[in-house]
Amino acid sequence: MSEKKYIESAEIICVGTELLMGHTLNTNSQFLAKELVSLGIPSYRQIVVGDNDERLAKQIQESAMRADLIILTGGLGPTTDDITMSVAAKVAGKELVFDEESYKNMSAYFRRLCRNMPKSNKKQAMLPENATIFANHNGTAPGAMFTTSAPTDEDPDRIVHLILLPGPPSETTLMFNSEVRPVLENMSEYTFTTKYVHLFEIGESEAAERIGDLIDNQTNPTIAPYAAEGECMFRITQRTLQGEKEEDLISPIIATMQERFGQNIYEIGTRSMKQVAFDLLLKNGKTVSFAESCTAGMVSSEFVDVPGASQVFMGAIVSYGNSIKTNVLGVSEDMLGSLGAVSRECAQEMAEGARKLLKTDIAISITGIAGPTGETEKKPVGLVYLAIADENGTEVKEIHLSGNRMRIRRVAVLHAFNLIRKRLS
Amino acid sequence: MSEKKYIESAEIICVGTELLMGHTLNTNSQFLAKELVSLGIPSYRQIVVGDNDERLAKQIQESAMRADLIILTGGLGPTTDDITMSVAAKVAGKELVFDEESYKNMSAYFRRLCRNMPKSNKKQAMLPENATIFANHNGTAPGAMFTTSAPTDEDPDRIVHLILLPGPPSETTLMFNSEVRPVLENMSEYTFTTKYVHLFEIGESEAAERIGDLIDNQTNPTIAPYAAEGECMFRITQRTLQGEKEEDLISPIIATMQERFGQNIYEIGTRSMKQVAFDLLLKNGKTVSFAESCTAGMVSSEFVDVPGASQVFMGAIVSYGNSIKTNVLGVSEDMLGSLGAVSRECAQEMAEGARKLLKTDIAISITGIAGPTGETEKKPVGLVYLAIADENGTEVKEIHLSGNRMRIRRVAVLHAFNLIRKRLS
Repeated sequence: MSEKKYIESAEIICVGTELLMGHTLNTNSQFLAKELVSLGIPSYRQIVVGDNDERLAKQIQESAMRADLIILTGGLGPTTDDITMSVAAKVAGKELVFDEESYKNMSAYFRRLCRNMPKSNKKQAMLPENATIFANHNGTAPGAMFTTSAPTDEDPDRIVHLILLPGPPSETTLMFNSEVRPVLENMSEYTFTTKYVHLFEIGESEAAERIGDLIDNQTNPTIAPYAAEGECMFRITQRTLQGEKEEDLISPIIATMQERFGQNIYEIGTRSMKQVAFDLLLKNGKTVSFAESCTAGMVSSEFVDVPGASQVFMGAIVSYGNSIKTNVLGVSEDMLGSLGAVSRECAQEMAEGARKLLKTDIAISITGIAGPTGETEKKPVGLVYLAIADENGTEVKEIHLSGNRMRIRRVAVLHAFNLIRKRLS
Repeated sequence: MSEKKYIESAEIICVGTELLMGHTLNTNSQFLAKELVSLGIPSYRQIVVGDNDERLAKQIQESAMRADLIILTGGLGPTTDDITMSVAAKVAGKELVFDEESYKNMSAYFRRLCRNMPKSNKKQAMLPENATIFANHNGTAPGAMFTTSAPTDEDPDRIVHLILLPGPPSETTLMFNSEVRPVLENMSEYTFTTKYVHLFEIGESEAAERIGDLIDNQTNPTIAPYAAEGECMFRITQRTLQGEKEEDLISPIIATMQERFGQNIYEIGTRSMKQVAFDLLLKNGKTVSFAESCTAGMVSSEFVDVPGASQVFMGAIVSYGNSIKTNVLGVSEDMLGSLGAVSRECAQEMAEGARKLLKTDIAISITGIAGPTGETEKKPVGLVYLAIADENGTEVKEIHLSGNRMRIRRVAVLHAFNLIRKRLS
């Protein structure tokens, strides 16, 4: 049988009637697409099909005629409408056999949950013969990789790789990153080196204009701008043929960006804004607390995603109602009455109150109008005040954000972390 | 030419290399899928292809062999890589002709923005001859609907409908709702009625087993189980022919489910757990506060997503460090020293402390080990204690959750809202 040395193209098939019905947003396609790009494997199609034997089988066969690799997600569950494993195995002409180890992992998973394993889960240990099995550390369904033949006129012995992953994004991403990616890294014709430059307080179009000359002249490396919520990023990717010596073509581009963007660059690498803030707090030996009004706990909740957050983060006061601002944080009632909760003064008193009550080196406060209600003529939706208080005093920042309630709150959270970055760097 | 009275199936094709590369999350597919469900038009495939003439043309031809209606989004912009209109017109054998009215709309759009219209936009007024044109009130690209022939052996005169919509979601949704939907309402054979039954504290497989008899015997209505993070759901869908009187076939199924699942059902409808909790608080005139350790503000942050949350939610203490538990919430240092922060006793004291300090009718506390670190032999990752304190006393609940740190925190948040539900219903 002929198996190409390198995978030249891939397709992504997401299986699930819940996707076809629009009940679930398909985030797996985006995740896998990004991963394939970073692996240097082109993908030309993403497909969603429902939990239907015939249509799924047909889709796998069609995709196999075009692509060297098909990644499927979903339909690996224990119920009768979870058909992906059996359909794909049938297309590939493989028997399903009982996999002792997967069954043991599953039993252990249920034991950890102090629950009995339902009989139906046993089905998930029925896996294609001779497949590479991917363990699931976030759920019960193991993944699998195996081959199917997809003969063409030019290559009657053509072989296509199938990779089956579970549907829940937390399971898909973990399994892909820990088990699938290392396998695929050896199957791509190029090696890719990628650097990310993260910017804050500058829009994507303005950022792209400022390095328009670099973008227009790009060949290798490529420079691609991305807009994320409240921030933007450039991905700089250098391509090298497998086995060839890699020159550093990326550093000169980053040097130019640093010249042109200065303090707007918050990270060259992959750290998030909160990670950058955390690293600076840790390095400077400072503790932090938050006083949150419109963000209502989101700053704290986001911050503890950073591993080791407890070394610098003590806690927060979510002062949503004004009574909490006055009774707990000690914000002045008179000031609240005259200037309102969304004001420079309130932000300042909240930060100072939190710093005193929670006994941290630094305290950040956030108060604003996230909408859709609460707007006044002088205080539009999107107006947010943030304050940072430390031993050197308190600084207040006024920002104006656009978008819906969720976006305003999320971007305000980034600004809170950015205040820490600017104070400590 | 033969044109079916009703559309029996549709496919959705989203066009854009940014989707294939994973830069953009494909929300249009979900939006259109939901709309098709509500219109009673089954859709069996969603596809993403890049800005490539040949692959797009091939995809339209393939889809046309399977579906009576193809909805395409994206690739209607003014630049040279926006090819959807010309490729689809070519597949359908239609000439592009200049559409005076679309051009006028575009000019007016630029005038409203006080900007000059770039020459390149004129291309967007080149539309297929004899097409139905959909005006774009949120951007420049008009949409279009026209037919293409897709002969089969049974029906050599078969006709398929193509609908082309712009890619930006704000334009897609507005154009669909205002212009496309009324056209499609007259082209569907069935009407569909759907009910959702949401369950908590029961896994998908166990839930499906418990109504295995109903699922095995389903024809109309159909019953489909879905697993979401920490919860599960059944979707019950009844089909009725256009014009026929609709019998209620769904209620008896729901009655059986209520018998078998009892309190595990938290909602028959579309409300989220936090919405259910909010509605109960509002109805009972109760205020609520939270004391959060491992969730670190996530309960509060999630809760304020509910419109009107400020009517019942006062605030929260994020007591991540133990010093905040003792100094702010008044948790006993001795107890913390002997039993630790992840204990029944600590949960109880946190809830009671928050209720007293924040002066609310009800307070909920959450303390647990979200991992990946912090595990001890007696306290595994996923062990979480929640307490609910109100005028009748305090109740503590011990739960064991699986998954990574984020999942454990998210599911703990659901349990916090579930405590409110159980106390008030």
